[in-house]
Amino acid sequence: MAKIRGKKNSTKKEVIIEKASKLFREKGFGAASMRDLAVHVGVEAASLYNHIQSKSEILQAICFRVANEFISHLDTVQASRESSLKKMEMIIRFHIRMMMDQYEYVYISDHEWRHLPEPYLSNFLNQRRNYRKILAELIGEGIVKDEIKPIEPYVAVLTILSAISGIESWQRSRKHISADVLENNMVKYLIEGLKK
Amino acid sequence: MAKIRGKKNSTKKEVIIEKASKLFREKGFGAASMRDLAVHVGVEAASLYNHIQSKSEILQAICFRVANEFISHLDTVQASRESSLKKMEMIIRFHIRMMMDQYEYVYISDHEWRHLPEPYLSNFLNQRRNYRKILAELIGEGIVKDEIKPIEPYVAVLTILSAISGIESWQRSRKHISADVLENNMVKYLIEGLKK
Repeated sequence: MAKIRGKKNSTKKEVIIEKASKLFREKGFGAASMRDLAVHVGVEAASLYNHIQSKSEILQAICFRVANEFISHLDTVQASRESSLKKMEMIIRFHIRMMMDQYEYVYISDHEWRHLPEPYLSNFLNQRRNYRKILAELIGEGIVKDEIKPIEPYVAVLTILSAISGIESWQRSRKHISADVLENNMVKYLIEGLKK
Repeated sequence: MAKIRGKKNSTKKEVIIEKASKLFREKGFGAASMRDLAVHVGVEAASLYNHIQSKSEILQAICFRVANEFISHLDTVQASRESSLKKMEMIIRFHIRMMMDQYEYVYISDHEWRHLPEPYLSNFLNQRRNYRKILAELIGEGIVKDEIKPIEPYVAVLTILSAISGIESWQRSRKHISADVLENNMVKYLIEGLKK
């Protein structure tokens, strides 16, 4: 029977999650089967179950890993002594980089969270709501400090996060624009639109 | 057998398309059946076929109707004597309004076009590509005329259209922000981010 192979130092479970993220994005979580996943990993379906229990376990791992990355970056930003506008720039840049460097994971976390079982679903949504609330507060603080122009913070957060999720269309395209040009121009647009 | 009822002056086909747009958005085009649609319209499935041939015919009608609305608005904007920045504002405002007033149709045209049969699929994609190209050219003209700051037009168009499609999340939410507040703040953010 074929062995599960991955990069050096990555566990077998890690390899399975990585292959699954690609499969879930291409086929959708609902339509992808454990059998499909076994084909992608290159092993018998039975041997997958030595490492993971279910598709759901993989989805949880992906969604919570992505959530952790965003939350711990936000913690670092909040702890810094930068201006509110600079903090927003750090956050925007991080979101854009995540869409480039960890596209499959971010895509799944953005589109397939609906399939999380409880209690993970409610927990995930609470974290997401809280994350957006903190961004809105950060914008509110910037307005008070006169660094950010008066704007409804909810609308600003919606605009920023939706604009960045549009990088999906760049990911699917033939990419006549480099990742750096995309990052720098989008940051410029979104930051200069906020700046007082 | 029940009759197909709709607003005064709307044809039966129109009523079917309207109900279908809601059904396709809620259930997805792939999962929605003609039988489901009959239930939504409140008639026997057989009587639907007196007015439309297939799900596909409805999807075509929706996608091309939405495309027509955007293209004819763009034509009007292009024919006007406004500045490039003002033209962009008119376009952004129109997109936002479409996401509010014709949400179901725009949602389906944005998400379900992949299910269009050929030759409609290629035709639809060509129109979309062309539409985005014209927006990028408009931004390019604004840069030359010094009304718009130097920015990669492809990235600006991606940012604008993705930000606006985020109104989906507002549509699904409890709407503690009114449509007018959302529209005015998003226009402000996206236009001031472009302004030189």
